[in-house]
Amino acid sequence: MAEVAFAKGLEGVVAAESSICKIDGEHGKLYYRGYSIQDLAAHSDFEETTFLLLYERLPTKGELEAFRKRMRESRRLATPILDMIRNFPVGAHPMELLQSVISYLSGYVEHKIHHSATCNCRDTLHQIVQLASVVAAYNRYRNGEDYVPPRMDLSHGGNFLYMMRGTEPEPYESRIMDVCLILHAEHGFNASTFTARVVASTMSTCYSSISAAIGALYGTLHGGANEDVMNMIEKIGSKANVEKFVNDTLDRHEKIPGMGHRVYKAKDPRAIVIEELLEELSEKSGDRKNQEILKDVERVFRARMETAGKPIYPNVDFFSGAVYTMLGFPKQLFTPVFAVSRVSGWLAHVLEQRVGNRIYRPTSRYVGPEAAEYIPIDSRR
Amino acid sequence: MAEVAFAKGLEGVVAAESSICKIDGEHGKLYYRGYSIQDLAAHSDFEETTFLLLYERLPTKGELEAFRKRMRESRRLATPILDMIRNFPVGAHPMELLQSVISYLSGYVEHKIHHSATCNCRDTLHQIVQLASVVAAYNRYRNGEDYVPPRMDLSHGGNFLYMMRGTEPEPYESRIMDVCLILHAEHGFNASTFTARVVASTMSTCYSSISAAIGALYGTLHGGANEDVMNMIEKIGSKANVEKFVNDTLDRHEKIPGMGHRVYKAKDPRAIVIEELLEELSEKSGDRKNQEILKDVERVFRARMETAGKPIYPNVDFFSGAVYTMLGFPKQLFTPVFAVSRVSGWLAHVLEQRVGNRIYRPTSRYVGPEAAEYIPIDSRR
Repeated sequence: MAEVAFAKGLEGVVAAESSICKIDGEHGKLYYRGYSIQDLAAHSDFEETTFLLLYERLPTKGELEAFRKRMRESRRLATPILDMIRNFPVGAHPMELLQSVISYLSGYVEHKIHHSATCNCRDTLHQIVQLASVVAAYNRYRNGEDYVPPRMDLSHGGNFLYMMRGTEPEPYESRIMDVCLILHAEHGFNASTFTARVVASTMSTCYSSISAAIGALYGTLHGGANEDVMNMIEKIGSKANVEKFVNDTLDRHEKIPGMGHRVYKAKDPRAIVIEELLEELSEKSGDRKNQEILKDVERVFRARMETAGKPIYPNVDFFSGAVYTMLGFPKQLFTPVFAVSRVSGWLAHVLEQRVGNRIYRPTSRYVGPEAAEYIPIDSRR
Repeated sequence: MAEVAFAKGLEGVVAAESSICKIDGEHGKLYYRGYSIQDLAAHSDFEETTFLLLYERLPTKGELEAFRKRMRESRRLATPILDMIRNFPVGAHPMELLQSVISYLSGYVEHKIHHSATCNCRDTLHQIVQLASVVAAYNRYRNGEDYVPPRMDLSHGGNFLYMMRGTEPEPYESRIMDVCLILHAEHGFNASTFTARVVASTMSTCYSSISAAIGALYGTLHGGANEDVMNMIEKIGSKANVEKFVNDTLDRHEKIPGMGHRVYKAKDPRAIVIEELLEELSEKSGDRKNQEILKDVERVFRARMETAGKPIYPNVDFFSGAVYTMLGFPKQLFTPVFAVSRVSGWLAHVLEQRVGNRIYRPTSRYVGPEAAEYIPIDSRR
């Protein structure tokens, strides 16, 4: 043990000032650039929210039109990228592919990124948009289907579903997908966002920074909780089994996935929105199974927690897996879908980092062996 | 301005304990796992040094033989990787390609990496070895030449030169290349190593962590100083111009690249070794121009600094560019060659991070706008 304590995992250490996102955990509020996530979910779309994150304000009508056009023109995948996706080994994880493709695009795009604080990465929406196209194409190839070129008339969420399915989604599905992307677009400092900022602090490219962030999001301690929830739903099978499942799990001192949040003491504001989306999807599709199971898990879980004096609420992951499943995503794509959304927040952080930048260079404490003499190989033990 | 100061760039913040590398800046000493860089340069090779970094001790004869075999068996590039290299846009930077390929390999390798603290990444030497092969193949394709399959009888440095040139290097060249790789293999915490650790702390794969680190090394604030030195040599042109160049540069209050080091107050111990390598290369090749210019730049520079009471010494970058140039590397490959070497240190840090891991999750201070009402688009300004 070291003599002096240090903040392991940099816990509690302020690494930067940021004006992108405010999380009011006490009251269960989340704001992007001052706008509440509820308002954005109700009135905005992913393209406008991306503008807000990157330009620090809502766009005028003309600005938004121009911005949408630029984003949509970046949807098509180039042939070498399609080759990378097609050749990607079956059984490997699409997050590895996403990390690789975004870095590859750093060289591939015509509008070459420069290593400079003055480089306007806001013009490189390409990487934001391409992530959705890569995930969609990946899923089609995995299912033995062909790449579907993008549609320019659909929202970002709607086109994402279209490129994955090959058929036009219902307008309510497009809207729900787009709101999911809004909800996950930004959430302050966390390991992936921090990674993007550390890489950006070296004056590497935006693409290299985003690629690195995808690598961090791939970690099991970071993404993946909604996959666990979906596995739980499948394991429970039907509403009738919920009570026993939850009680047995808690009796074994195991966790119910998607419950509680490190920051939110009240209910995760994103969970409130996404629960409504699940309600809408369940009603429109007539498939209430996932929703019923989740509602009942929440009921039984919270009753037990309240008895124990611990008010713990569902977080956004508790509902998102069911929504993605009902929109047609296999579980393996849940974390990639997270990246498709969070890329807007990452880019906002990369841009912010570049202003008044200082390279991240913490120190370490040496706890290794003292100087030793090199022993010739024949004399070793 | 914030009311309370924080450590921008995490300067002076201890982010972890580490037993990999000890830098004694005061006395100009560098140790890997307790062994001095001079001893390793004199007696070890890159494969043995990699074993030392990963296993925390020098190998026995049998262990080293088995380790060499495993490393060498990983040299060959798979067809989809060769396609990625061949298709990579001309004019793009090979660091972007390296970042992409390593992440792609995360899915491609047969020995699938698991997200687990117990996963033995020491078995995944593949990524260490492949970096050299990718850089060599990249350079050949750029020159309109074919991929050269690896030789199993050469050292890591020797095979690297062989795959790049297509002809067997002289034994002294192989040795010099290998020593350069030893010298750059590890240097404690810095932005790229820290990036590797942050990504590893999410329990992402080794490949994803290394790929992210490559993205950080690509930043102009991190790698690239030896390119600046080589540009300076070319600008100076001949020894006769050195005095004027150095004096003019310093009179303009500009920096001489490759001089001084944030950590070393005495001469960078790696600079001492690499200066000897440059001497050997210059003598053997009969080409003394680079060496003469550098020696004279150092002489004039240090005389001026000593007059000003500032003893500043050359660092490793001051000599490495000339060595790489004389070994046949174009300047664009200097930072990729750095990655080919540093990957061993990065992997050692990834392994160390996974023991007693805590995810890196610093906080940020919100300095953005207060909560605002969402304004419908037609009502904006």
